[in-house]
Amino acid sequence: MAGPDTNHYSGAHTMTPQPTREDKFSFGLWTVGWQARDLFGEATRPVLAATEAVHKLSEMGAYGITFHDDDLIPPDSLPAERERIIDEFRKALADTGLVVPMVTTNLFGDPVFKDGGFTSNDRSVRRYALRKVMRNMDLAAELGAQIYVFWGGREGSEVDFAKDVRSALDRYREGIDMLAQYSIDKGYGMRFAIEPKPNEPRGDILLPSIGHALAFIEQCEHADMIGINPETGHEQMASLNYTHGIAQALWQGKLFHIDLNGQKGPRYDQDLVFGYGDLLQAFSTVDLLENGAPGGGPTYDGDRHFDYKPLRTESIEGVWESARANMELYITLRDRSRNFRADPEVQEALEAARVADLAQPTLGEGESYDDLLADRSSFEEYDLETARNQGYGYARLQRLALEHLLGVR
Amino acid sequence: MAGPDTNHYSGAHTMTPQPTREDKFSFGLWTVGWQARDLFGEATRPVLAATEAVHKLSEMGAYGITFHDDDLIPPDSLPAERERIIDEFRKALADTGLVVPMVTTNLFGDPVFKDGGFTSNDRSVRRYALRKVMRNMDLAAELGAQIYVFWGGREGSEVDFAKDVRSALDRYREGIDMLAQYSIDKGYGMRFAIEPKPNEPRGDILLPSIGHALAFIEQCEHADMIGINPETGHEQMASLNYTHGIAQALWQGKLFHIDLNGQKGPRYDQDLVFGYGDLLQAFSTVDLLENGAPGGGPTYDGDRHFDYKPLRTESIEGVWESARANMELYITLRDRSRNFRADPEVQEALEAARVADLAQPTLGEGESYDDLLADRSSFEEYDLETARNQGYGYARLQRLALEHLLGVR
Amino acid sequence: MAGPDTNHYSGAHTMTPQPTREDKFSFGLWTVGWQARDLFGEATRPVLAATEAVHKLSEMGAYGITFHDDDLIPPDSLPAERERIIDEFRKALADTGLVVPMVTTNLFGDPVFKDGGFTSNDRSVRRYALRKVMRNMDLAAELGAQIYVFWGGREGSEVDFAKDVRSALDRYREGIDMLAQYSIDKGYGMRFAIEPKPNEPRGDILLPSIGHALAFIEQCEHADMIGINPETGHEQMASLNYTHGIAQALWQGKLFHIDLNGQKGPRYDQDLVFGYGDLLQAFSTVDLLENGAPGGGPTYDGDRHFDYKPLRTESIEGVWESARANMELYITLRDRSRNFRADPEVQEALEAARVADLAQPTLGEGESYDDLLADRSSFEEYDLETARNQGYGYARLQRLALEHLLGVR
Amino acid sequence: MAGPDTNHYSGAHTMTPQPTREDKFSFGLWTVGWQARDLFGEATRPVLAATEAVHKLSEMGAYGITFHDDDLIPPDSLPAERERIIDEFRKALADTGLVVPMVTTNLFGDPVFKDGGFTSNDRSVRRYALRKVMRNMDLAAELGAQIYVFWGGREGSEVDFAKDVRSALDRYREGIDMLAQYSIDKGYGMRFAIEPKPNEPRGDILLPSIGHALAFIEQCEHADMIGINPETGHEQMASLNYTHGIAQALWQGKLFHIDLNGQKGPRYDQDLVFGYGDLLQAFSTVDLLENGAPGGGPTYDGDRHFDYKPLRTESIEGVWESARANMELYITLRDRSRNFRADPEVQEALEAARVADLAQPTLGEGESYDDLLADRSSFEEYDLETARNQGYGYARLQRLALEHLLGVR
Repeated sequence: MAGPDTNHYSGAHTMTPQPTREDKFSFGLWTVGWQARDLFGEATRPVLAATEAVHKLSEMGAYGITFHDDDLIPPDSLPAERERIIDEFRKALADTGLVVPMVTTNLFGDPVFKDGGFTSNDRSVRRYALRKVMRNMDLAAELGAQIYVFWGGREGSEVDFAKDVRSALDRYREGIDMLAQYSIDKGYGMRFAIEPKPNEPRGDILLPSIGHALAFIEQCEHADMIGINPETGHEQMASLNYTHGIAQALWQGKLFHIDLNGQKGPRYDQDLVFGYGDLLQAFSTVDLLENGAPGGGPTYDGDRHFDYKPLRTESIEGVWESARANMELYITLRDRSRNFRADPEVQEALEAARVADLAQPTLGEGESYDDLLADRSSFEEYDLETARNQGYGYARLQRLALEHLLGVR
Repeated sequence: MAGPDTNHYSGAHTMTPQPTREDKFSFGLWTVGWQARDLFGEATRPVLAATEAVHKLSEMGAYGITFHDDDLIPPDSLPAERERIIDEFRKALADTGLVVPMVTTNLFGDPVFKDGGFTSNDRSVRRYALRKVMRNMDLAAELGAQIYVFWGGREGSEVDFAKDVRSALDRYREGIDMLAQYSIDKGYGMRFAIEPKPNEPRGDILLPSIGHALAFIEQCEHADMIGINPETGHEQMASLNYTHGIAQALWQGKLFHIDLNGQKGPRYDQDLVFGYGDLLQAFSTVDLLENGAPGGGPTYDGDRHFDYKPLRTESIEGVWESARANMELYITLRDRSRNFRADPEVQEALEAARVADLAQPTLGEGESYDDLLADRSSFEEYDLETARNQGYGYARLQRLALEHLLGVR
Repeated sequence: MAGPDTNHYSGAHTMTPQPTREDKFSFGLWTVGWQARDLFGEATRPVLAATEAVHKLSEMGAYGITFHDDDLIPPDSLPAERERIIDEFRKALADTGLVVPMVTTNLFGDPVFKDGGFTSNDRSVRRYALRKVMRNMDLAAELGAQIYVFWGGREGSEVDFAKDVRSALDRYREGIDMLAQYSIDKGYGMRFAIEPKPNEPRGDILLPSIGHALAFIEQCEHADMIGINPETGHEQMASLNYTHGIAQALWQGKLFHIDLNGQKGPRYDQDLVFGYGDLLQAFSTVDLLENGAPGGGPTYDGDRHFDYKPLRTESIEGVWESARANMELYITLRDRSRNFRADPEVQEALEAARVADLAQPTLGEGESYDDLLADRSSFEEYDLETARNQGYGYARLQRLALEHLLGVR
Repeated sequence: MAGPDTNHYSGAHTMTPQPTREDKFSFGLWTVGWQARDLFGEATRPVLAATEAVHKLSEMGAYGITFHDDDLIPPDSLPAERERIIDEFRKALADTGLVVPMVTTNLFGDPVFKDGGFTSNDRSVRRYALRKVMRNMDLAAELGAQIYVFWGGREGSEVDFAKDVRSALDRYREGIDMLAQYSIDKGYGMRFAIEPKPNEPRGDILLPSIGHALAFIEQCEHADMIGINPETGHEQMASLNYTHGIAQALWQGKLFHIDLNGQKGPRYDQDLVFGYGDLLQAFSTVDLLENGAPGGGPTYDGDRHFDYKPLRTESIEGVWESARANMELYITLRDRSRNFRADPEVQEALEAARVADLAQPTLGEGESYDDLLADRSSFEEYDLETARNQGYGYARLQRLALEHLLGVR
């Protein structure tokens, strides 16, 4: 099956990168399968069969596909239908070699979850939600998923007086704890990844940022098997620096999965193609993921997962066009970031900016605060004027980064 | 010393609340003392003597005053001058009974900190910063401050490629760890409180939200003595719900101090009078602090600290006018929140909305996930239609809250 | 038909205002009729019959109801069905006395409009859009609507390179010009009102703010019959002051209609109850609409139209609860604003703040710039120090406004 | 005088573009001369002499320099000093060939303007402001400036109840009208350009967006000589699309001047280097300015003016580094946009997306609305299904734009 764009112009794409399995690119079934129904308008695209998504993604060089339970299996399917769907999906995976690195649960679409899943004020809803997750974890395990994601898009409130946040966090933790125990007992070997978001669809969502989720995790019983799945646009909806956020997650050993996309700052959740929002920050994100930059060292080795929505103006050709765009842009940014790191002038500029010096402890080896207090050069005789007048050389680094990003060096 | 507003119209304020010591209101010396120099213009007000601030705040019914080292003692003061200033300040405290509940360090004003204090790429700056904090902790201890605040306004970056965030967090932790040890060893008995902020003056600041700070604290050696000092406006600059944020901090036992003010969403840091930004959220904040609402239970018992900037258009009369406005509005919101909680109709509406039900565990006592799996009423036979069609009654609660806020019930 | 809330607690609402026809409150049929389907979830409420909406709104004291063509008449209705629906609707209006002050067209829900109506790159879509508007203008005229609103929610783009904005504005104007001519020729006597919005559902919408729409109108052939219909939340999504915006529209004689609701700053379009976003700004909005404040004088005399969405958590009881909340809050703010204006102390504070002085021309009567140049007291001998040191007394005014808003004076 | 960066690495800049006079790049004296004093900290850089700025900018290939009166001449200068400064500045211009395309007035720095210049509640301040402008217009005329900019950064309010917006707009217009008459009578031949901004330093600034300013201009007496000076970051602080905004200004013939810089969405005014905020939108901005894209045709032929602030971390080397970065990035984007427009595949994609079709009127030549009503193919027999199902091909255009921006085609 040849994509329409291939026919149109792939011949001219002499410099266009070709994704391969080794790039570990993955897509949510709900991304390329989005029918483009939004708050103000009806669907503009027909249903995309999961098996077709698998084949087409594989053909384009992707590595994995992920899904919510309801993406794959219509919620009202009878058992036999459910089995048939799963079998066909499994066959498509086997035929193509695509893997399922991550699975997640839809706890937001059904009206039953209008006040949340794990934290609904209605206890029976909370119990139903746990059951829905367990059923899907069984399937995830069958399909070999290593990561199970929790996006609590309906866990939150519009009315502060109607939601007891502390109890809600208790219930959230209770749910996560129970499900972690379930995974352990069943030998599923999964790691959980919580996905933060500040708002939309709820007025305010619980665990609204990378930080809030990281803090929450520390309160969980099996904190060691729980990390985060931060999404570019979700942090940027809160004006937060995504690269900084995932760096803190890495610092805490908690970057278990990643959702890459684009967003134009605080506004509705746009789910643009990766890089189509803040392109410069996308460059520093890739530089961090690929090079551990600026400090180096190990970072993230899971799949590079795109969670985007093809524009509503597009037919299926535009869907594949934009799916491809995510991968190509990532590869381009990766190549450019490697050139940036390899450039001797960049290395000189990094040294001039003393970027690596920050890895050096502020106290000397074995130095105590008493020693510091005794070091008059650190305070009483500190050469303040020199320190005040020095330039840090960051403008030069930024200029070099832009030149590499744009390929003019 | 009679404030000009007193002369003008206090007689008419028959319903205006009068703050007392028991309200535990405190102000930063830098708030009423702000000379109103901003990025685009020069100071519009003369220096306000610290002793005058103490006397005036006391007269208006405040409980405490707080400061950065450089607010109280001009940075270039000679030792004798420093002592004189401290003595006068201490005398004013003694004369009035005002206390110093919190002290903090200015690690942002001097050009030496242009790349940060604890996380500057220049190690000598980091050492200087630690020394500056230690010196001021000694003074804070002398003055009886129980809380020491860390606002790292210059810890951050504009250029992602120039700051190794993971090393920066290492250095941040190193600094906090050393200073915590210092406080312990000296017997100061202080608790530390980290104040998050997303941006301004740096393009992106480290520990940008309540969540990021809470997560960071867990990585510190003396995590038990470290909490947060969240500021209303700082969270709202990131479109985050402040009441939710402090509820999560309370849930984790980390609300050590609080900075109340106002902000009109994501834009420059406005430091408006408390309530002059999102008035409705200010109401839920006070309801949480005072009533533990909606779930009840213990919350925060420290000083209610206002961190605001009097408008630049105002002379000293407007400074005191707005200082008073913070306290009055807090008292009004507190009174209204108590009426709200006491109203039988509100109680009925809370029950109808099952707000307290969220405190009930999702699993029954002793119930395991196996039991839940065996409970067919939780899933296979769950009455989805009823759960989907039910209304949660939150609109009614919000309407009642508004009526109490505005005093029409 | 008694609303459930009436049963619950209306007896206790001793201070709760009762809306009447004279208040001129109106609602969109799509507001109380919103089924609460959002981007992430299915509808939580059944269809609300238009006739039921009319009866219920009338019973609650509303004055008018408005609609998009497709709200009232399902898009695929056959002619006979269409007539039946219109007849029933007209009968309900006659039975209740409710009027239809405004009508508008849905040019956003059908996939055919995915790239816009008047400005789609596909000319046949543009023609279809014009026809759809004309058909509905005929109906609007029949029902006596005086205002016809244009919200171009799909006129915009996500890809700057794909939309020629200057041509788009040509086409927008062409459409408006032709329809204005149509209204004139048919003797419909309508006035047009353009409704700006910055984004959502398009990445960027054309005519994104009050200002852009006002500027556009001046380029239209029949500019005199075209004004704006500004929505509270739409301006606040762009961090703009709604009260300032409608004041500029009034200044230009262009406030033809108004959409009142609530929004928590730049994020997804929340359509909260009026006042549930920025309550303090809602107070100044009502003060401007009702009192012409702060300058006095004529302002707006059309219907007070609420364009909000009842929370998705609510059943029909919550729908009516929140509909009522819009009206009650407006009345409360109106009452409070009148008290504010009548308070002698406020009047004194306004005088001290020289608010009315701004109405005095800067040049004296008959004064030329030569005279000003010759007036040495204006510059060469201007008493700068006094002018620099004066306080403007705005803090006091704000404090008084808060006291009146909260009813503590 | 060789810049330090030249020594460091210019040899390697084989692909780095070299700005020339023909590029018409200009800088505000206040940009490279910013001493980096911000709201939270003291200046980090010494004063930069205006003559040095002229020489250095000329050496780097700039075309022009602009200033506020107080940038060039310290406010308290005596007449002789003033003359000496002007003479030296004029000599530097003559020596280098740099021109002064634009001049503006500082009506925000002095405390006298704390409530605004043209719209202060204090009439004597308004008169002083007019005089200050006139004095500087005389100088601007002497230096050959063709454009006079008005940025009313202090015209606005924090307290809605304290500012009569309609009177304020009257006074704003009165001021502009008088000054326009002054320019005409003196034969200065200047064009005025109003610069909008939504907030900061005032809570809300009057004429907050491109649209509001365009609408205001239409109310002025000499509207034909008044246009706008839109700044990239100011529009983006309000989440508005800058490219769309300047396209509307061009559509109305009002893009008289332009301020290019960078901003990361709604937050404090960052004044980053052009392109360092939303790089992708910077590309579409340059494409519009240079190619009239996507529709073609004449656009803007004035100076490309950078209004940015060098990072506070930088010494003078970083200042020149970043000044150069503005120009280089603009040239790179210009080159890339030309390649984009010249690419046959892009042309094919534009055709497929029917971008040029939008220039075709919706009505045929001579077609009336009656004709349209009679055209059954436009509505009654319109092929809705085909129109609904078509894809617009925007994803492909965006992908091609990215490839050209990054130079991978």
